[in-house]
Amino acid sequence: MEELTLYIGNKNYSSWSFRPWIALTAAGVPFREHLIPFDFPAGNPLFRDISPTGRVPVLHHGPLRIWESLAIIEYAAELFPDRALWPARRDDRAVARSISAEMLSGFRALRGACPMNIRREKRRISLPDGVMEDVERISAIWKECCEKSGGPYLFGPFSAADAMFAPVVNRFDVYDLVRDAEVLAYMEAVKSHPAWIRWCEGALEETWIVPEDEA
Amino acid sequence: MEELTLYIGNKNYSSWSFRPWIALTAAGVPFREHLIPFDFPAGNPLFRDISPTGRVPVLHHGPLRIWESLAIIEYAAELFPDRALWPARRDDRAVARSISAEMLSGFRALRGACPMNIRREKRRISLPDGVMEDVERISAIWKECCEKSGGPYLFGPFSAADAMFAPVVNRFDVYDLVRDAEVLAYMEAVKSHPAWIRWCEGALEETWIVPEDEA
Repeated sequence: MEELTLYIGNKNYSSWSFRPWIALTAAGVPFREHLIPFDFPAGNPLFRDISPTGRVPVLHHGPLRIWESLAIIEYAAELFPDRALWPARRDDRAVARSISAEMLSGFRALRGACPMNIRREKRRISLPDGVMEDVERISAIWKECCEKSGGPYLFGPFSAADAMFAPVVNRFDVYDLVRDAEVLAYMEAVKSHPAWIRWCEGALEETWIVPEDEA
Repeated sequence: MEELTLYIGNKNYSSWSFRPWIALTAAGVPFREHLIPFDFPAGNPLFRDISPTGRVPVLHHGPLRIWESLAIIEYAAELFPDRALWPARRDDRAVARSISAEMLSGFRALRGACPMNIRREKRRISLPDGVMEDVERISAIWKECCEKSGGPYLFGPFSAADAMFAPVVNRFDVYDLVRDAEVLAYMEAVKSHPAWIRWCEGALEETWIVPEDEA
C-alpha cells in the first residue's frame, strides 16, 4: 500500500491536527508525519498547496486528499479494519460517532476562549458566557461513557472518540476547568497514553509562539 | 429488526433534521418519523426527554440513542450496507466524508445569516462578512465533485454527502446567492429529488412561525 502522509500544524496549538494524529498513532496505523507551522502573520501559504481547504490536518494517500479530522479517522478505520479505531460493538460505535460529531460541530464557547496549548502552565482565566455549559456537557459525556465501559477510556480501550476529545483534555487541564474526580481520572488516563506523551514531547520542542492562542 | 424512529424538528426550519431525514428517505431506509415542533419561547421541553443533547435530530433504535446528523447517517449506513448511503468507491467515500465533516463543522457565517426556510419566497438580504466566502467554497466543492462524477449529484447517485448539503441548497435558493450555471444545475437536481419534494410538502403544511429564523 502507498504510504499515508498526515500534514499537521504546530503540535503546541493545532487541536484539529492532534485528533487524527493521536487516533492513528494510538491505533498503530503507519503514517508519515509532515508538520507545517503556523508561523506567518497571514497564515502559511504552503497550506494552500497541500489542502483543498487551506487548513490542516490533511491526509495524502497517493493522489487522494482527505481533510477534516473525523473524515481522516474514518478513512484510516476503513483502510485498517483490524486496528479497531472505532469501538468493536455497533451500539458503542454509534455513540462514539455521536459524541465525535458533537465535538466536531460544537463547544464553540470553550474552543474560542480556551485554545489548546500544550506548553501552557496551568492557570485559570476569566471565562466568557457559555464556557462552563460546554465544560459540563463534555464532563457528562465522559462520565457516562466511562461508567458504562468501565474505563479507562470512553469505550474501554483508547478509540477514535478519545482522540476527538484529546484537545479538550488539554484545555480542561491547563485552564483548570474541572474538579470532578471521575473527569480528572479520565483526563489522567488520556495524559498517560504513550501517543499523548509523544505528541506533547513534540510540542515542547517547538519554539513558535502564536500570540492569539496565548489566552 | 426493531423499528428506527427519527425525531425531527419543524420541516420548515430544522436544517439539522433535514440532513438525516433526506439521507435515509432517499436511500430507502425504513424509519418512523416523529416531529416535535420548536413552538415554545424557551424551546420545547420534550426535546430533553428524547435526546441526550436536548436537540434534534435524534434516532431511537430500541434503547439506543444516536444523535448528530452525520452519526445518524453512519449508523444507518452500517445497518443497511446494501442501501449505498455513501458512495461505492473508497476514494469517493473519503471525499464524501471530508466535505460532510466540513459542512458539519463549518460555514458558520452562511448558516448564521441565512437560516434554512423552506417556505420563504426568494429574496436577497444584506449579507454580513464571511457569507460570500462560504458560498464560494461550497460552490467550488459542488462543482468539483459534479465535474468529476458527471453528476447529477456530488458522487453520481444521490448520497449522504448530498444530504449533508441539502439545507444549503435551500439557503442558496431562497436568499438568491448564486448565479453560476453549474451550481444552479446541481441545485435543480437536488430540488427535483423525490425525497426533497416530500420534505418540502411537509414544510408547506406547517403553520408554526419561528421569528428568529425569518431573516
